[in-house]
Amino acid sequence: MTQLPETHPLITGRTFDSPLIRALTGRPPETVPVWFMRQAGRSLPEYRRARQGLGLLESCLMPALAAELTVQPVTRHGVDAAIFFSDIVVPLRLAGITVDIQPGVGPVFAHPVRTAADVEALPELTAEALAPIRQAVSLAVAALGDTPLIGFAGAPFTVAAYLVCGRPQRDQLAARELMHRDPGLWHALLERIAGYAAAFLGAQVEAGASAVQLFDSWVGSLTDEDYSRDVSWASARATAAIRALRLPAGRRIPVISYGLARTGQLRALAAAGDAVGLDYRVPIDVALRELGTDTPLQGNLDPALLAAPYPVLETAADRILAAGEAAPGHVFNLGHGVPPGTDPEVLTRLVAHIHAHPTAARAAVPGREGPATA
Amino acid sequence: MTQLPETHPLITGRTFDSPLIRALTGRPPETVPVWFMRQAGRSLPEYRRARQGLGLLESCLMPALAAELTVQPVTRHGVDAAIFFSDIVVPLRLAGITVDIQPGVGPVFAHPVRTAADVEALPELTAEALAPIRQAVSLAVAALGDTPLIGFAGAPFTVAAYLVCGRPQRDQLAARELMHRDPGLWHALLERIAGYAAAFLGAQVEAGASAVQLFDSWVGSLTDEDYSRDVSWASARATAAIRALRLPAGRRIPVISYGLARTGQLRALAAAGDAVGLDYRVPIDVALRELGTDTPLQGNLDPALLAAPYPVLETAADRILAAGEAAPGHVFNLGHGVPPGTDPEVLTRLVAHIHAHPTAARAAVPGREGPATA
Repeated sequence: MTQLPETHPLITGRTFDSPLIRALTGRPPETVPVWFMRQAGRSLPEYRRARQGLGLLESCLMPALAAELTVQPVTRHGVDAAIFFSDIVVPLRLAGITVDIQPGVGPVFAHPVRTAADVEALPELTAEALAPIRQAVSLAVAALGDTPLIGFAGAPFTVAAYLVCGRPQRDQLAARELMHRDPGLWHALLERIAGYAAAFLGAQVEAGASAVQLFDSWVGSLTDEDYSRDVSWASARATAAIRALRLPAGRRIPVISYGLARTGQLRALAAAGDAVGLDYRVPIDVALRELGTDTPLQGNLDPALLAAPYPVLETAADRILAAGEAAPGHVFNLGHGVPPGTDPEVLTRLVAHIHAHPTAARAAVPGREGPATA
Repeated sequence: MTQLPETHPLITGRTFDSPLIRALTGRPPETVPVWFMRQAGRSLPEYRRARQGLGLLESCLMPALAAELTVQPVTRHGVDAAIFFSDIVVPLRLAGITVDIQPGVGPVFAHPVRTAADVEALPELTAEALAPIRQAVSLAVAALGDTPLIGFAGAPFTVAAYLVCGRPQRDQLAARELMHRDPGLWHALLERIAGYAAAFLGAQVEAGASAVQLFDSWVGSLTDEDYSRDVSWASARATAAIRALRLPAGRRIPVISYGLARTGQLRALAAAGDAVGLDYRVPIDVALRELGTDTPLQGNLDPALLAAPYPVLETAADRILAAGEAAPGHVFNLGHGVPPGTDPEVLTRLVAHIHAHPTAARAAVPGREGPATA
C-alpha cells in the first residue's frame, strides 16, 4: 500500500474536519471528540441480538455483520468515531493459524509458537485472505457518512503473548521467558507478527479507515527496559507503512498507539504512533510531563467508574476533560474497554456531557459558545 | 495478641541475628539475605510428591504437611527464610466461607460478596479456628532452627477482589466497581477483611514467625489515588497489631509490605509495613528515589529471567545486588512468585551466587571477605 483510492474519506474530505481527525492532527476541534474502546460489544442489546448463536471470530469474518456491529454504537451513542469490530487474533486466523476464542477464557491456539521451526512455519497473510476485512470496512465506512472509522489491530507484543502462551496467561510469562531465553527467535517472531498487523491495518486503511489504533493490552507486564529494547521496535514497524503514507494536501492517517502501559513506557509507546491512548492509571498531567505537549492524548476514564452513581462519574469525567485541555489534542475515551455489564444509557449520557464541554475552538467562533457556556 | 511467648525465636534470640532479620531491622548483615516468593511450590519435585492427590486448601490445613512444604525450600536451596505455606483465602475458609481453589483457575467462591447483607453475614474468624495454623507454624519453626519463618497473609484489597469478583477477574473490575458504587459498603468490607488478615498474621507470629509479609498481588489495578484514599488504610490496619508489638530489648517483628505496585503506589504501600517488597517492574533506584533511604527493600528479579541462560540471569541478579547496596537493607527476592516450571537447580545456584556477593558488613570483619573477594 503506497497510496489510497481517490474515494477514501480523508481524500474526499468527508472525515477530514471531524472532531476526531482534527484532534489527532493538531487542529483544535470545536467539541472534544469521544469514543469508547470496546464500544461495539456486549453492553449493547442490539449487539447481543445480532451476534446471537455466532462465535466471536465467526462474527468478525462476516462482512455485513462486522460492519453492522461497528456502526451500532455510533448510531446509539453519537460517538465521534467507529472502531472496526474485530479481534486481535483475526489476522492470525486469516493467515491460516488455528485459533479459537473460548467464552470466558479468550483466544486458545492449537499449537503455541515456541521454537524456531514454529516461527518459520507461520504462514503468510495474503491480500486475498484480507478480502472480508476490506469488505466489512467498506460497508461500515459507507454507513458512517462523515464519522471516521478507526482501524484496529493488536500490537505485536500482545499478539505474541497469546501465540507463545497458547492462551491468556497472567503476566504473559511464557512469552517473556522466550524473550529472555532466545532473543533471536523472539525478534523473528515479532517481525512476523508485525507484518501481520501491518497488512491487517493496511487493508482497513485502503478500504476507508481514517485513522488506526494499535492495541497493546499486555505491554504492562514488561519492564520499561525490556519494552524499549526488545519490543517497541515491532510496534513501530506495524504502523510504519501507514505513517509513511502521504495523502494529497498534506493529509495523513493518524495512528493512535494505545497500551495498558505504565508511565515509564509512554515514550516508547509514543514512538509507534502520532497520538497515545492512555491506561486509566496514568493521569493525563503525568503523561504530559513525560511526553511533552506535541503528542495528542486519548483517554482515560477508569471503566470501573461507569458503575458509580452518575454524579460521581460526571465529576471524574470533568477532571479528565480539564486535564485534557493542556494536551495538543485530547480525545476522550476510557482507559480500557467498556465492561460488558455497562448500562448503555450511561454511555449515551456521558457522550452528551463530553460534547457540551466548552472548548477554546468553540469559544472563538461567534454564536458557537454552545450549551455548556449558556 | 499483646505479647509473645518467651519461647518465640526473636525473644530467645535464635533468629534475631539472621541476615533476614538484620536487613529488615537496620543492622547490616554479612551476606545479602535471599528467599523467593512461592519458593514452596510446584517447582520442587519434593513438593509435588508431598501434595500428590491433595487439594491446595486441604494441604494448607494439614499442619504437618504445611510445615513440611514450608521447610522444603530452605533445606534444598539454603535460602535465608521460610515463608509460611498457605493461600490468601485460607483465613476466609477458616472463618467458614465456602471457597474452593480450582486448578488452572484460582479461588472460586460459592457466594460472591456484593451487598451490605453479604458483608454483614461474613463470619468471625475465631482463635479456635486458627489452631491448625498455629500448629503448622510451630512445627515449621521447630524444624527451621535459626532460619526465620516469615508469616503470610493476603492484603485486604487482593482478598476483597476475589471475594467480590467471586473468582479471578482481569483488572479486578467487579471489586473496583463496588468501591466506586458504594464507598461505605466497600469500607465495611475492607474493615472485615483486614480483621481476618490481622488474626491470621497474629496466629503465625504467636506461634513463632519472626517476620510477616502482606501480599497485595492485585493492587496494581487501582489508580494511585484510589489506592491511597480507599484501600491502603486497610493494609495498615491488617498489620497494626504486629507493628505495635514491643518485644524485650527493643526487638520487633518486621513487616514486609509487598505488592505488584506501580511507582506511584509505593509510599502508600510502605505505610503498611517496615519494609517494601517490590514488583519486578519498579527498578530499585526508582524505589529509593520514591521512598527515601529509611525503608529496607526486598526484590526484585523478573521471574521470567529464571528461564534465561544462566549468565544472563546472573548478570541481571548482579544489577539488582548492586542497586540494593544503596538501600538501608536489601533482601534479594523475585519481583513476583517462582513460576511452576522453574528448574530448582537454577534457584539453588542463584542462592549461592547471592550469598557470595561481598557486603560492607563482611568486609569490616577481618578474615571474613568470603568467596566473592577471594
